[in-house]
Amino acid sequence: MKIAVLGTGVVGKHLAAKLSRLGHEVVMGTRDPGATMTRSGSADTDDPPFSQWSLAHAEVGLATFADAAAYGEVVWNATRGWDSLPALGLAGAANLAGKVLIDTSRPLDTSAGFPPTLFVKDTDSLGEQIQRAFPEARVVKTLDTLYAHVMVNPGVLGEESTVFVAGNDPDAKATVTDLLTEFGHTDVIDLGDITAARGTEMMLPMWLRLMDALGTMAFNFKIVR
Amino acid sequence: MKIAVLGTGVVGKHLAAKLSRLGHEVVMGTRDPGATMTRSGSADTDDPPFSQWSLAHAEVGLATFADAAAYGEVVWNATRGWDSLPALGLAGAANLAGKVLIDTSRPLDTSAGFPPTLFVKDTDSLGEQIQRAFPEARVVKTLDTLYAHVMVNPGVLGEESTVFVAGNDPDAKATVTDLLTEFGHTDVIDLGDITAARGTEMMLPMWLRLMDALGTMAFNFKIVR
Repeated sequence: MKIAVLGTGVVGKHLAAKLSRLGHEVVMGTRDPGATMTRSGSADTDDPPFSQWSLAHAEVGLATFADAAAYGEVVWNATRGWDSLPALGLAGAANLAGKVLIDTSRPLDTSAGFPPTLFVKDTDSLGEQIQRAFPEARVVKTLDTLYAHVMVNPGVLGEESTVFVAGNDPDAKATVTDLLTEFGHTDVIDLGDITAARGTEMMLPMWLRLMDALGTMAFNFKIVR
Repeated sequence: MKIAVLGTGVVGKHLAAKLSRLGHEVVMGTRDPGATMTRSGSADTDDPPFSQWSLAHAEVGLATFADAAAYGEVVWNATRGWDSLPALGLAGAANLAGKVLIDTSRPLDTSAGFPPTLFVKDTDSLGEQIQRAFPEARVVKTLDTLYAHVMVNPGVLGEESTVFVAGNDPDAKATVTDLLTEFGHTDVIDLGDITAARGTEMMLPMWLRLMDALGTMAFNFKIVR
């Protein structure tokens, strides 16, 4: 499948590498491909400079948000939460219309330090904001409740854990569930329509507390029932 | 141990019954014991009229919030979230001073229907509000992330799941962890100080979505790591 991954950070890199390894044709989207290729990495070892990462993933393309979105049959939003609506605006409503738009963004406001807060919550969610801004896209919220490495390698935990889908379009959720299954996820719960993104996005503060308490990002929620 | 359980709803009934069965001496606290004894039950079969429940649990006492709190070495807040600060005010700061005050309340605002929202979140929590209002109490937030029946019978799920403690006093958290262990919980994560109640309380919207999606309240979160 032709998949656009918007965002070239930790989440985008993990998703693009995994999707490509699974045989999908992946083009990543960014504001300015030239700037992305010359940007230095962050302190995070999971987030090397894109140019370096790109050498090891030569089969993954890099284009503008608009060109990537035009290419993808499925578009995966892996941008930072505060940048998701602007980035998707650059991708262009016409390039998203009718397509499955997977949203893995988190509405974190890190401006006041740790712990970050959420810039939308409880009575609305970033998933809903995106669906409202792009009504012709078929938005599915997923994978916003776990770390990038675990998103695409759930087996590292050595035990089954749970991921979630929320969205208004059943067919879109089925497409996303298939991709999650390809990633190795064996327990996918359909939470209902896109308003359920309020639930998944509001797990972020707990995730951050758990990261702090456990001293690792290698964990995930499982719904025991 | 002498334990006061404040609140005579579903949560209070389950906690009091379990603690009593485990051999603790339990007095439940309410505004007006006479009114509680004559009140009819709710539609919830887990929430029979108190007079009827009381016949089957004659060893559990019923007193005013203040008398119950004065009796308890440990005080367990099982009142509804919007009523917790008023109820604890009636219990009295002097009756809470120095004691372990276990807080299982949830800051749900049900005034606008389903799904309810949270009347405090993200930058504050009900657990913190209670700790600030009663600075001499040693508040521990716990069991606000699962249904009453599963709180006291975790074995019904047939598989280990996780509960959490958050509070400023390590000894108080150890006391609570011992009680949770008596209940049958085998995985208790210490999330840190009382500000971590923001994390547990913000899981409520997800819990409600899961209840809706799964069609049951018999589930719990497990942290797979």
